[in-house]
Amino acid sequence: MKNNITVKYIDELVREYIPKNHDKVSLAIEYSLFTGGKRFRPMLLLQTAKAVGKRLTDNAKRLACALEYIHTYSLIHDDLPSMDNDDLRRGKRSCHTQYGEAAAILAGDALLNLAAETLFRGNFNSKNYREACAYMFLMSGSTGMIHGQNLDLFTETKSIDDANQVALHKTGDLIRAAIVCGALVAGATEEETKIFDQIAINLGIAYQVVDDLLDADKCERSFLDIMTVEGCRNYVKRLNDEVMALCDKLPYDLQFIRDFSLENLNRNR
Amino acid sequence: MKNNITVKYIDELVREYIPKNHDKVSLAIEYSLFTGGKRFRPMLLLQTAKAVGKRLTDNAKRLACALEYIHTYSLIHDDLPSMDNDDLRRGKRSCHTQYGEAAAILAGDALLNLAAETLFRGNFNSKNYREACAYMFLMSGSTGMIHGQNLDLFTETKSIDDANQVALHKTGDLIRAAIVCGALVAGATEEETKIFDQIAINLGIAYQVVDDLLDADKCERSFLDIMTVEGCRNYVKRLNDEVMALCDKLPYDLQFIRDFSLENLNRNR
Repeated sequence: MKNNITVKYIDELVREYIPKNHDKVSLAIEYSLFTGGKRFRPMLLLQTAKAVGKRLTDNAKRLACALEYIHTYSLIHDDLPSMDNDDLRRGKRSCHTQYGEAAAILAGDALLNLAAETLFRGNFNSKNYREACAYMFLMSGSTGMIHGQNLDLFTETKSIDDANQVALHKTGDLIRAAIVCGALVAGATEEETKIFDQIAINLGIAYQVVDDLLDADKCERSFLDIMTVEGCRNYVKRLNDEVMALCDKLPYDLQFIRDFSLENLNRNR
Repeated sequence: MKNNITVKYIDELVREYIPKNHDKVSLAIEYSLFTGGKRFRPMLLLQTAKAVGKRLTDNAKRLACALEYIHTYSLIHDDLPSMDNDDLRRGKRSCHTQYGEAAAILAGDALLNLAAETLFRGNFNSKNYREACAYMFLMSGSTGMIHGQNLDLFTETKSIDDANQVALHKTGDLIRAAIVCGALVAGATEEETKIFDQIAINLGIAYQVVDDLLDADKCERSFLDIMTVEGCRNYVKRLNDEVMALCDKLPYDLQFIRDFSLENLNRNR
């Protein structure tokens, strides 16, 4: 099952909906969309949809692309001088370094717009699809990912709860969008969807803790502000155990989720 | 008919869907949404919907709010230092001047997100609504308004055609979204919708020409780069005549459009 949903396959999908004009903003969009991202969010979405629904619908593919557009816009805006001020992204010049700040702001705006546009052209006769679309934009909006960015920029981490909240929203909410939208669009029950959401929350926080361990030399907000390296490693292991136990509760082949969780545990980038 | 759809009525609608959390980004959103905007885009949308469909549905109200969220986000991002660098907006501090650049970028992102979120929670059993949602995001995206901002920032105006293209997209496309989405959601025929679109295109360009006349002292791209003041005034009159002739072709009471066009002709701000 996993073999069909490759990075190359998702690259082709992602390219399908982008506008074909060639102005500066469109060049900046294309540049940012194709800089070697791992595509793990759309991949998790499609794999979940396929595990639950046994096939990939056009609606599921639209959701996967929309999620990658949202993720990419958030990186472009995060890298801006007034935000994280990163000149590099994945070892290449970040969007504003390459195209200037104004084009980068507009490219981000255009990608978020494109996410909605792509979804609005799907098949809305499906109630599952409607729910998935609403959930995706809930997760990406001002009580979701953007709330996480707000916490990250404008608040202090004083406790493990604070750190969890930032990680849950900033990193976790788009992983929740991936797994829960995949489950919803394929018709998972409400009970199952709740378990998928719990899995995604654990994965999202674990992903952020490992990011913090790998970025230990950067002076950014980090789980390392409140835990030792050893404490962080144990935390990721506990979250991984939780993911495995939750997968056991669902009647689907979720090996790809187990693999993702284990790969995160051991990843070095 | 017009009396029911007041600025106050739209203010209340716009407030209905905004998130109730109180982080910095949410404060910036609220600040920017309630700084005395004229609300003419949502007003045109609701008036068109009412003229065509005789009543205002929940879907029409959602479209009106989404459009105002999109318009507001575009102003916040336009005012940023790397874009138009405006410290003031409607005589008050612009969003980034009040809350800082990072919060302003996120507030704009959150408003665009909120527009989609508000629409995704509407009643998608209506094909008219689905078409209106898709049209709105087409008009606001990278071949619509954002393309206009791209032209404005990164190209030169050498001819009336160039100036029309900038005005059509930068200013016109959200006015097209207002009038065409209002017509679509209320069930206008394809033929009628085309006429509404022509009306909106004329209004949009006329609105930009008058803006340029009123901002003659600013060193910005302008119709005055390629036409005299007299030429501009005559151009607005011709566009207004065209609007009147197009209104005559439609079987609806479109006095509010005639009024809008005449008010634009004579407006001094």
